[in-house]
Amino acid sequence: MSAPRVVREAAALVIGDELLSGKIRDENIYELARLLRSLGVVLRRVVMVGDDLETISDELRALSARYDLVFTSGGVGPTHDDITVDAVARAFDVAAAVHPELEALLRAAYGARYHAGFERMALAPVGAELFRTEEVPWPTIIMQNVWVLPGVPEVFRMKLRQVASRVEGARQFVTRAVLTRMDEGDLKPLLDEVVARFPEVQVGSYPRWRSEEYKTKITFDAATEAALEEAVAAFLQLLPEGEPQGVV
Amino acid sequence: MSAPRVVREAAALVIGDELLSGKIRDENIYELARLLRSLGVVLRRVVMVGDDLETISDELRALSARYDLVFTSGGVGPTHDDITVDAVARAFDVAAAVHPELEALLRAAYGARYHAGFERMALAPVGAELFRTEEVPWPTIIMQNVWVLPGVPEVFRMKLRQVASRVEGARQFVTRAVLTRMDEGDLKPLLDEVVARFPEVQVGSYPRWRSEEYKTKITFDAATEAALEEAVAAFLQLLPEGEPQGVV
Repeated sequence: MSAPRVVREAAALVIGDELLSGKIRDENIYELARLLRSLGVVLRRVVMVGDDLETISDELRALSARYDLVFTSGGVGPTHDDITVDAVARAFDVAAAVHPELEALLRAAYGARYHAGFERMALAPVGAELFRTEEVPWPTIIMQNVWVLPGVPEVFRMKLRQVASRVEGARQFVTRAVLTRMDEGDLKPLLDEVVARFPEVQVGSYPRWRSEEYKTKITFDAATEAALEEAVAAFLQLLPEGEPQGVV
Repeated sequence: MSAPRVVREAAALVIGDELLSGKIRDENIYELARLLRSLGVVLRRVVMVGDDLETISDELRALSARYDLVFTSGGVGPTHDDITVDAVARAFDVAAAVHPELEALLRAAYGARYHAGFERMALAPVGAELFRTEEVPWPTIIMQNVWVLPGVPEVFRMKLRQVASRVEGARQFVTRAVLTRMDEGDLKPLLDEVVARFPEVQVGSYPRWRSEEYKTKITFDAATEAALEEAVAAFLQLLPEGEPQGVV
């Protein structure tokens, strides 16, 4: 991992032909994005690719060099299309080999039913760490700055608890949202003024389609409560009578 | 667009800080993936980035050069963070300018309420096509092989009907799924045999977590019904007694 910086940046690589062909809907990007945000880590990029060894390993090499943390999702089961561990090994120019600890765990879990068909699940890149917590004892492979997470959403979410126990970001946000019935076009001059006056506050604008409750949600993210309060107060002053519909 | 090939390949660029920060869950990748699959277009790569002009334009330049079709999602409203049209223009080394046709449409839609705050929505890269259909008359900007689609899911889905009316893929699939109560580890030798015997059929294996109905879904994709039938029949022969739970 790179030397400490003010902001830790992350990327995710989501792997699976089934996602690109629309057979399955990804559920993991959103969960990861929410967790990282709550940890103060900035997710900068998500890439989704199919089950191709070279594509995955090329992408991993690039993401691992550029970001502090990389999370993969998918491709870690025992079948022919589960090639993420091989790709991680290849990205770091090491072999993938049966890890005695993983093999022992699989044997314990499957008992007499364990056979060579499960062997892919015992593989790890040589030099990888197996990370476990008391709460989530099944280990996760971490190869340098790459966390290898499973694609099945329920298991992915469980593994995120391991991420939360170890990853700490530098950027803590406070956040607020203002709900209005105004069009984005009408809001634009107001937003421009707030963006110009408070360059350190991130302002986002999100129209909602066919909602009775509100039309556009304006979000404010700041490093401190004081900066947040000031920007939100300035924006509320600019709103016409009858607005906002709420501040949440 | 490149010369006709056997398989048309596409990529998607999904744009928005709100997605990477987990404020909003993307709903468009799945819809696009399903549509492209039904059209016989192979989606090869999806990239998600934030609202940064240079990042978006660099990514677009790379994707546009590499794939036959590129679809963007998001960043096309009137506010400060809506910079996709500028980024598309920059990727193709042209300016973004007010398009008289878009301006006229916006004026007609907003009437007396139209003002400079809406102007960003009238911009198009110089040289872009405005594509509309009878069914969906609001035009979509197409710049060379890049379709500029909105992020709001309801509008995105509406625009996909325009895509469907114009895009035609080369790769038509027939597909079937076999449901089993078996573990992937136990299925692996059977799958390996089918994959080896039918290299032209794509075989996927998708475990389901805590389901009563089945444990693993095996999917088969083939170019012809005959090839599909043969591979599925061969696989069914390999299954133990009591399987499958269903063929769908």
